[in-house]
Parts: sequence; structure tokens; C-alpha cells
Amino acid sequence: MLQNITKPTLLVDIQKCKANIAKMAQKAQKSKVIFRPHFKTHQSNEIGELFREFGVTKITVSSVDMAKFFAQNGWNDITIAFPVNILELEEINLLAKNIQLNLLVEAVEVAEILGKKMKHKVGIFIKIDTGYGRTGIDFRKTNKIDRLLTTIKPYSQLEWKGFLAHAGHSYKIRNDRTAIQKIYDECRDALQFLKQKYQPEYPQIIVSAGDTPTCSIVEKFEGLDEIRPGNFVYYDLTQWQIGSCDLDEIAVAMACPVVAKHADRNEIIVYGGGVHLSKDRLQLLNGQTVWGYATQLKTNEWTNINRNTFVKSLSQEHGIVQTNTSFFDKIKIGDILAILPVHSCMAANLLKIKAL
Amino acid sequence: MLQNITKPTLLVDIQKCKANIAKMAQKAQKSKVIFRPHFKTHQSNEIGELFREFGVTKITVSSVDMAKFFAQNGWNDITIAFPVNILELEEINLLAKNIQLNLLVEAVEVAEILGKKMKHKVGIFIKIDTGYGRTGIDFRKTNKIDRLLTTIKPYSQLEWKGFLAHAGHSYKIRNDRTAIQKIYDECRDALQFLKQKYQPEYPQIIVSAGDTPTCSIVEKFEGLDEIRPGNFVYYDLTQWQIGSCDLDEIAVAMACPVVAKHADRNEIIVYGGGVHLSKDRLQLLNGQTVWGYATQLKTNEWTNINRNTFVKSLSQEHGIVQTNTSFFDKIKIGDILAILPVHSCMAANLLKIKAL
Repeated sequence: MLQNITKPTLLVDIQKCKANIAKMAQKAQKSKVIFRPHFKTHQSNEIGELFREFGVTKITVSSVDMAKFFAQNGWNDITIAFPVNILELEEINLLAKNIQLNLLVEAVEVAEILGKKMKHKVGIFIKIDTGYGRTGIDFRKTNKIDRLLTTIKPYSQLEWKGFLAHAGHSYKIRNDRTAIQKIYDECRDALQFLKQKYQPEYPQIIVSAGDTPTCSIVEKFEGLDEIRPGNFVYYDLTQWQIGSCDLDEIAVAMACPVVAKHADRNEIIVYGGGVHLSKDRLQLLNGQTVWGYATQLKTNEWTNINRNTFVKSLSQEHGIVQTNTSFFDKIKIGDILAILPVHSCMAANLLKIKAL
Repeated sequence: MLQNITKPTLLVDIQKCKANIAKMAQKAQKSKVIFRPHFKTHQSNEIGELFREFGVTKITVSSVDMAKFFAQNGWNDITIAFPVNILELEEINLLAKNIQLNLLVEAVEVAEILGKKMKHKVGIFIKIDTGYGRTGIDFRKTNKIDRLLTTIKPYSQLEWKGFLAHAGHSYKIRNDRTAIQKIYDECRDALQFLKQKYQPEYPQIIVSAGDTPTCSIVEKFEGLDEIRPGNFVYYDLTQWQIGSCDLDEIAVAMACPVVAKHADRNEIIVYGGGVHLSKDRLQLLNGQTVWGYATQLKTNEWTNINRNTFVKSLSQEHGIVQTNTSFFDKIKIGDILAILPVHSCMAANLLKIKAL
């Protein structure tokens, strides 16, 4: 495979990938929660199929287009974990006709439009903000939730499923498992508070949460009915910095041809830039910013990740790898470096994967 | 057109685009330099065709793939402004068979390989570093240039064309035309020094330079034979911050549906994230970071760009727009915002354009 690489290529280590899925699936099973992985990370039918081996039948996506893609590939229970975009109602209706589709709602006006326009049954999750501050209703504002429920109730095609949260502020943590656990606990407490308040009247409701950092460090998913991590399938340097994974659990790397060398500054120029890796950056504790760590790719595996060899800057197509003399001297023009990405979801969105 | 937009869509204002091309083409013509625009910004056949109206027949690209794309669309004089990737020699040979192809070389070992492997005539530019520090031979190191020329000379299919530089450090300037002019002057002086040194033996050589910042502010391209700006066709917020353009010369905007509103913090959530705009950010002088400025898109034009309405953060699919109360109150869920991108090359790489 390696000898076929002539351009920037996203490599997936399928063994690592499967190990990451297995670990998460087993934890979910032990905790008896629904495992509804987020497929926005890989957006790949091939990687999606790996999940079936672990009993996964329900998935999460973040756009109507992704829902269409995976529905066409045989997935028939999909949650679009993104506030409903009312301009896509036609496509949403088509999807709801063919699969079990779940939507996220937080605004009365959107619920009203869905009620009037949906021709097929659709699951509705109320999006809850448990502290992230991006989208959703603050869990303490139950009057807002009540108004939303009043709007939803008369429409028989809107089936209220429960509450959904994404504690995305876990991404701001740096290597602090206690802090990640605290975010999990707060999220679970907020959702449990709501579940206990509304379950007497709506016994069927569930609560859904679970981002990659919390799902990676929490051993038992108490107080949740469903988890939806996505990034863990590949992990990346951001997750490593957060504390969600070890460097050797990262299952993707960008293979980049070496095109130039500058001995006076120990810099290696690779074909591989922002259009391949994305411009997501890692701010290190020492103040330095890097766009990836690099190593030589000799066989089909990347090993010996050395933090002295890093991407110091990215242009559209160029990556500048800063290194030490001993690594520099080993590398020739025409060799291939493997770069561990800062954000695997963004890198995978840019390039189609090439499985090892 | 507007009513057909249901998802994040890259809009191009063709009038602004043509005005930007016209201005640059006229300056080039007055200065009697070859105008070889960089097509990596738009990567679009449709936008490429606009250039023909202004007499453009030679273009620049930054990858073999882009060269193939434009060669297939009738462009037959292409410079790949990227150090030759020796792993793509087969494709390079095919291109050189069919068009006038120019390559960038800075390493003796690459020149040697090209000499041995190229089956068709190809133009060679020596890549010169005039102060940017990314790629190229330091213009003062003429012994390196001599070695490279000695390597190239015996191979009749390698036609030495001259020196090429990219003064990319102009991108670090913030609103300082004098500083941009200084970078232009230094780049020109370095290239002129080389031209004068080598022209007696090689009378045919030319010198090529010209990034968007310097080409935008310099009125007369003295001392250069060819300019290769690219970004100017669209411009963007980075160029506006550098001082290359006015806000109303920016010819692209991302149309993004509004999906949620949060009155307590004057935030509007749009469908439009890092996979649409890229993660390129703008560091403002007050320390704030923004990922774009936003305005309401009512007709086919975006106007009234208000710096109080900006993208404060981007996730994969979400954009969070921070604004003031008066703008917030005007906007409804289902409306469309136009977001001026921080880096139009990256945004255009992510989404196909939809011309207005």
C-alpha cells in the first residue's frame, strides 16, 4: 500500500479503530445504555460498517446530508444532532418517510413548523444546554421546556423522545480527568433532574448525552440512557491533550510526501497543508502552537511519535515540519511522513480515507 | 437564486470578482509584466473563464491535481508553484507532454531526478527565498544556485526559465502599506540581483513574484517580469486586515441558514461551520478572535457589513454569530446570513461556488 501513496492520503489503522470501537461498545453494554455513535467523525460507509460488528444499529449525524448518505447505506435509525434547519424540510420529510429519524428542537417556532409540515412520524429530542453555552435550552428553564411541549403535543406525528445534551465544554479541559468527570456529572445531574420532572407524565422519555472526552474517561454511564461519542473512533491530538486517549490509540494519520529540506533550520517541507489537515491547531502548555506531530512512515504503521518533530505551520498545500538533526538527517526527499492530525473529524472531512 | 439556498453555500459576486480581475490585469498591462494569476484560490473552471476576457492565457496552480484539472479545461501554460513532488513524476510527464508546464526546483537531487526521468520538455524555475523562510534557496547563496544550474544544464528537456519567489511574509502585515511596499522592494531587489548576475550567460531568464498583498498596493511592478497573485480574485477578511482591499471588494460570502437564536446572549446559531468556512481565524488588534463577519442576506447582494456581528466560534457544522440587540431582533430562524470568510482560498476549497 505504502508504495502507492504519491499525494497527501488519510490512513486509517483499522486495528486501532476496531479496538477503539470495541472498548466503547463494551462500556456501553456494561452500563446498559444505548450506544448511538456519532458518524460525523468518519463520514465513511466503510468505517460505519465496522460498527455493525459491535451490534450498533442506531447512529448520530450532524446534517441532513449525512443522514441521507447513511440512510442510503442501510442505516435506518438516525438522530440528526443539530438544530432543525427548517429550509431542509422537504429532505427531512423524505428521510422520515423511510427511516426512524430523530430531530433536535429547542425553539417553539421550529416545533410549530414541524408540526404543520411533517407528513411522517419523526422522533423529537429537546436540546438541553447543561453548561456548554452553544445551543439548547438551559436545563433550569423548565418554563421554556413546558412551552415547547405544549407546542409539540397536539401533533401526533411528532413523537417526543426525551432530552439530548452535548457537554462540548469537555473539549476545553487539558489533561485533567477530575474536571472531565465533573462535566459528566453535571450533565447527567441536569438531565436526571429533567427526566424525573417529566417522566411521570411522559414515561417513555430517555436522556441522551456523551461526548468523546467524558465517554472515554467515565467507566460506567450511570444516569444516562444513551451515549453518542464520535471522535473516539479515530481520536486525535486534541483528544490526547484533553486526556481522552494515548498517542498510540490515535487511529488516523495523514501520509505526506517530503518535497524539500532546509538543513540550516532543520525543516522538512511536505506536500500536505490546510486543505488536507484543516487549520485546527494545538496550543501546547509551553505556549507553542503545532498543527500535528510527524514521524516517518516506513511500513504500514506509524510508530515512534516524537514530539520534537511537529508541524510548525501550514499553508494551503505546504506543511512545514520542524525537527531535530538526527530525524532530519534520516529523511530524504520522496520519503513519506505520517502526521497525526490535531482534529480527525476535520481531516477526515477533507480527504477520503484509505484504510491500511 | 436566494430562495434556492437551503444549506451553507459559497456565493460569488461576479461583478466584484470581475472588477478585481480587471484592476489587476490593467496594472499588469501598464507595467508590461506577464499576468499569471494563481488559480488555487478559486479552483473553478467558471471563475477561470472570467480571466480569459482580460487576456490571461498563463496560470499558476499549487498542485499536480490542479494542473490536471485546468489542463483538461483548456489551459495550456501552467506553472505549478510548489516544490516538485517526485512521487508524481508520471502525472507530471503526462502533463508536460500536452502543455507548457513549468516546475519549481530548489534541490539538486530533484533536478537530477527530473533530468533523468522527464520525457518531455518542461520549464524550470529556481525557487528563491527572499525573506519568507518557507521554501526556496536564499537569494544570497549563489553557490547553491550554481550547483543547481550545473545539474540542470546537461538535460536538454529541462528549460531553465528563471527565478521565482513568493514573498508570503507580506501576509503577516497588518494595515501598513509602507511595510508591504518594503517587502515588495526587497523581493524585487533580490530577484534583480540574481537576474543581473545570471542574465549575461542566460539571456532568456525572467523573474516572477507577486503575492496578493504586494500586488494590491503596488501601483507599478518595476523590476519584475511576471506577477502571480491569486487571492485578489475574491479577497477576504485577512486581506482586508492586511490592507490589500476594502470590505466591499470582497467577492465571496458564505450563505448560512439561521437555525437557532439565544436572546439572553444575543447569539444566532447558523448552519455553517468549520467544514464550510475552514478554521482560519482573524486575530483582531483588540485581542479578539473572529471567524468571519456576518450580515443578513436579503437580496443577491451582501451589504452593511457590521463589525458588531461576527462569528465568535465554529464547530464542525455550527457557527455562533455574536451580535447586538437591534440586529438580533431583525433575524428570524430560517433567514440566511452572509458570512465574509477569513480565508477565501480555504472556504472555496471546501465548497463549490454558486455564482450570483
